[in-house]
Amino acid sequence: MTLSERSFLSTNSFSQNDQILHSEIGEYVKQMFVPTLGTSIETQINEIVNDLSEEFLSTKNANTNVNLDLIIKNFGDSKIPLEPTDFETYFQSLGDNVVSHSIHTSSSQFIGHMTAALPSFVRPLAKLMTVMNQNAVKIETAKALSFCEREALAMMHRQIYDFPDKFYTQHIQNNQSTLGILVSGGTTANITAMWCARNTSLGAKNEFLGIEKAGLTAALNFYGYKGAVIIGSELMHFSFDKAADLMGISTQNLIRVPVDSHNRVNIQALGQAVTDCRQQNLHIIAIVGIAGTTDSGSVDPLEDIAEIAQENNIHFHVDAAWGGPVIFSRKHQHKLAGIEKADSVTIDGHKQLYLPMGIGMVFFRDPHLASSIEKQASYTMRKGSFDLGKRALEGSRPGMALFLHAGLKLIGLNGYEFLIDEGIRKTQYMAARISAMPEFQLLAEPDTNLLIYRYIPEQFIELVANKQLTEADNQVINIFNEYLQKKQRQIGRTFISRTTKNIINFDKEVPVVAMRAVIANPLTTEEDIDAVLNDQIQIASGIEIPIN
Amino acid sequence: MTLSERSFLSTNSFSQNDQILHSEIGEYVKQMFVPTLGTSIETQINEIVNDLSEEFLSTKNANTNVNLDLIIKNFGDSKIPLEPTDFETYFQSLGDNVVSHSIHTSSSQFIGHMTAALPSFVRPLAKLMTVMNQNAVKIETAKALSFCEREALAMMHRQIYDFPDKFYTQHIQNNQSTLGILVSGGTTANITAMWCARNTSLGAKNEFLGIEKAGLTAALNFYGYKGAVIIGSELMHFSFDKAADLMGISTQNLIRVPVDSHNRVNIQALGQAVTDCRQQNLHIIAIVGIAGTTDSGSVDPLEDIAEIAQENNIHFHVDAAWGGPVIFSRKHQHKLAGIEKADSVTIDGHKQLYLPMGIGMVFFRDPHLASSIEKQASYTMRKGSFDLGKRALEGSRPGMALFLHAGLKLIGLNGYEFLIDEGIRKTQYMAARISAMPEFQLLAEPDTNLLIYRYIPEQFIELVANKQLTEADNQVINIFNEYLQKKQRQIGRTFISRTTKNIINFDKEVPVVAMRAVIANPLTTEEDIDAVLNDQIQIASGIEIPIN
Repeated sequence: MTLSERSFLSTNSFSQNDQILHSEIGEYVKQMFVPTLGTSIETQINEIVNDLSEEFLSTKNANTNVNLDLIIKNFGDSKIPLEPTDFETYFQSLGDNVVSHSIHTSSSQFIGHMTAALPSFVRPLAKLMTVMNQNAVKIETAKALSFCEREALAMMHRQIYDFPDKFYTQHIQNNQSTLGILVSGGTTANITAMWCARNTSLGAKNEFLGIEKAGLTAALNFYGYKGAVIIGSELMHFSFDKAADLMGISTQNLIRVPVDSHNRVNIQALGQAVTDCRQQNLHIIAIVGIAGTTDSGSVDPLEDIAEIAQENNIHFHVDAAWGGPVIFSRKHQHKLAGIEKADSVTIDGHKQLYLPMGIGMVFFRDPHLASSIEKQASYTMRKGSFDLGKRALEGSRPGMALFLHAGLKLIGLNGYEFLIDEGIRKTQYMAARISAMPEFQLLAEPDTNLLIYRYIPEQFIELVANKQLTEADNQVINIFNEYLQKKQRQIGRTFISRTTKNIINFDKEVPVVAMRAVIANPLTTEEDIDAVLNDQIQIASGIEIPIN
Repeated sequence: MTLSERSFLSTNSFSQNDQILHSEIGEYVKQMFVPTLGTSIETQINEIVNDLSEEFLSTKNANTNVNLDLIIKNFGDSKIPLEPTDFETYFQSLGDNVVSHSIHTSSSQFIGHMTAALPSFVRPLAKLMTVMNQNAVKIETAKALSFCEREALAMMHRQIYDFPDKFYTQHIQNNQSTLGILVSGGTTANITAMWCARNTSLGAKNEFLGIEKAGLTAALNFYGYKGAVIIGSELMHFSFDKAADLMGISTQNLIRVPVDSHNRVNIQALGQAVTDCRQQNLHIIAIVGIAGTTDSGSVDPLEDIAEIAQENNIHFHVDAAWGGPVIFSRKHQHKLAGIEKADSVTIDGHKQLYLPMGIGMVFFRDPHLASSIEKQASYTMRKGSFDLGKRALEGSRPGMALFLHAGLKLIGLNGYEFLIDEGIRKTQYMAARISAMPEFQLLAEPDTNLLIYRYIPEQFIELVANKQLTEADNQVINIFNEYLQKKQRQIGRTFISRTTKNIINFDKEVPVVAMRAVIANPLTTEEDIDAVLNDQIQIASGIEIPIN
């Protein structure tokens, strides 16, 4: 059916008295846009939302014990209603169908993902951001906010690189300089970093126009390379797969170097990979170091990677989406030593800066590196302007800088240090508990505040202690842990995530299903950690082997 | 200075009585995370934010009359404070330095950009979204929300494609299907569409592993192409430059076909470009049609483009970031006829769906097209799961689906139809006013609700009427209009944006600086439109030629 036929049909489905209804709907809709806060509709919605929020925040359970199938049933309507739905009806159903069955990411016993409780000031700020509805892409829709964003990014840049005052005076509000880019998340940050690294290293030279204008194939030809690669540990986040795919260099050319038993990249192997690529005439766009793997929180030896990158004149990127804020801790920042040598660094605001979802950042040692991706448009994004969208993957975007700026100011260095220290302290507590309990096996000493371990069913406890597990035993334990994690999630009282690790056993790599704890919620206590472990023990006691 | 040296230095800068302070800061910070809404701090912030919001929303001026230089001075501090800043002090300064000098995007006389007033229900919803803080990347952090998002996207999909009921029953909550992807904005949506089109058309075949795994150069080799291109009108959004650069096909291979005097792509020229590329053995990744150019709101002849794409078996993408919601209007949807033949469509929620900044969408005719960009990770994003992040450019992202779902339900088809019709009606009013006023020249009949025109200084009025303008005259008028637009923006009472168009004059293309009005705010009245034009006339009367 074509649009014009549809138009006719839908006209018929309208009321006979279309003209009158049309003016009524007009008044109804216009009323929604009245620019005062205290309208009766908004007051009414506010009350419902406050009730829903209060209940949501105070719920200790990680989740409701309701099967996905039942939830799915509520979301099978593909038709937009003709008439506006009544506010009360809608918010009621939103509460019943969405809010009730959402994950209590702020629960102190939800310690399985990188999303935790948020400080209360983000709530009024979220409202203010929506009231202001600035578009950070350009100065004409985000006047003071553009400068506020630059300031917040400069503060983070300084925390990483600590250049002298005059560097920041020169660059903080210089429209030719880009100390960092605010993006929607770590994936976009990593892709942006790879894009800048690629365009800079394969840029214009002599008669060659550069990869941006001439393309990848021509660039490789001009520079005499057979291909282009990105090198990092096998634990690189899957955003690098996206970057390698998107940029056309292929996911096969995302070279994943093995890690050691601490889940840190094997430096010898990394050095060898660089040598191999050079010998094969492959251009190395970047070497990636990880500060806090998604999988286990491990931190690569950044100093050593920096050295290899410097010696070989290769862009050094640190993916510190998770671990970046560890630099706020005087006690633990040494784990990130070398990050200040990175050409680019990714840090997420919505992870360990305790800001709402949707805040990623990429920082650049060289404030002119991002010029390699600059674009212009006549209707906006003018050269020489302060338009932040000139050097960015994204276009229009919200004023999330408000959260970043507020977080840095309201929590401060000491506040963030406390949060980081506490997370690591509690993780060490959990590691000690796990080591002390025969039901569990710690799978790696935690570098930061991620922990991987597994449950050991009773009949295997001695075998594990004596390192006598067979591959078949291991497989049974794997099935058990996967089942246990799913069961725990389904029951919903507490939550731990899971991952699969390759671990050496009898000199052979075997896949091990691991429980993965992420301890970042300031509200999580040692009692909560015990409760989560006890919940697992209790659930496990009801699981019989073989599992059907 | 290395991190470890810094660590030492910053330790010294801490208070002597570090231990005690550390516990005090701990209590202070933990207090921020208390999961009840009514804490005294939050109540206090809420009051400040309400006052700031009330004032912001009720201000009629587009902007404050303050120079950027003065604003910049407030954002020159690159140091994160050691101690948390007091809430009241911070929010006070936020009000003074940021809110006061932000753009009143909701002002009824701010009619220059695609950001307008928002319905009041988004404000409580913004708070609820932040309270819930779901991460839409995976089911384990966004249970009901994942299905709610799929439902909202299906509703939009149906509005575009109108497939029969059984299609939606089959795909709406099928984890193998992707009817659409929610992204942060139109740029990411367009890039995602190009990525899917590229990966599908250069996919695995026989022994070839496909572009994802083997890369662009190998893919072009295997399929026997000399290069890859994207074809569209010269008015394509600059996100396609980003896509072409990022994907390695080069911005030179973004083929920009001329437009006619209505700013619609010249179909003959487009057909010729396809033929030329075929003859040159260039792979055409996609043909792009625009439904609402950023520049002037014009809509390409989508039916004709669809025909060319179909005949040549090329992916047809419609960038309807701006104009997409015109399908809600029975009166105007015929302008978008052909959009239902597109393989992919971009629509922005934060434009004409009147939702907050940060909502882009891409829709697919074939629910399996996005499989071409699928990625997995062991710690999450498992095959066969409902994890929305499997097929997406972005990773972690906020629950913006809440706004989309609420908008569609609370405004409804009739409500959106009213909003679209009104915007176009008022734009026609403005076009008529401009045509009737000698001070102005209409530069194109508006297709939708964007309008381009310019101010004509008195000494040129007759020359314009008699079509006797010389190139030198035109240049004077250009300088005048640029100056006028900047002056108007700086004074801040009202706002119109500007762009540069190439317009035929004496059979020669000359660049014309144009005023660009975007009329989407439901609060904008005919009186507001008159006020904006009169403001320009008044400001223009004070400008002398030559301009210094």
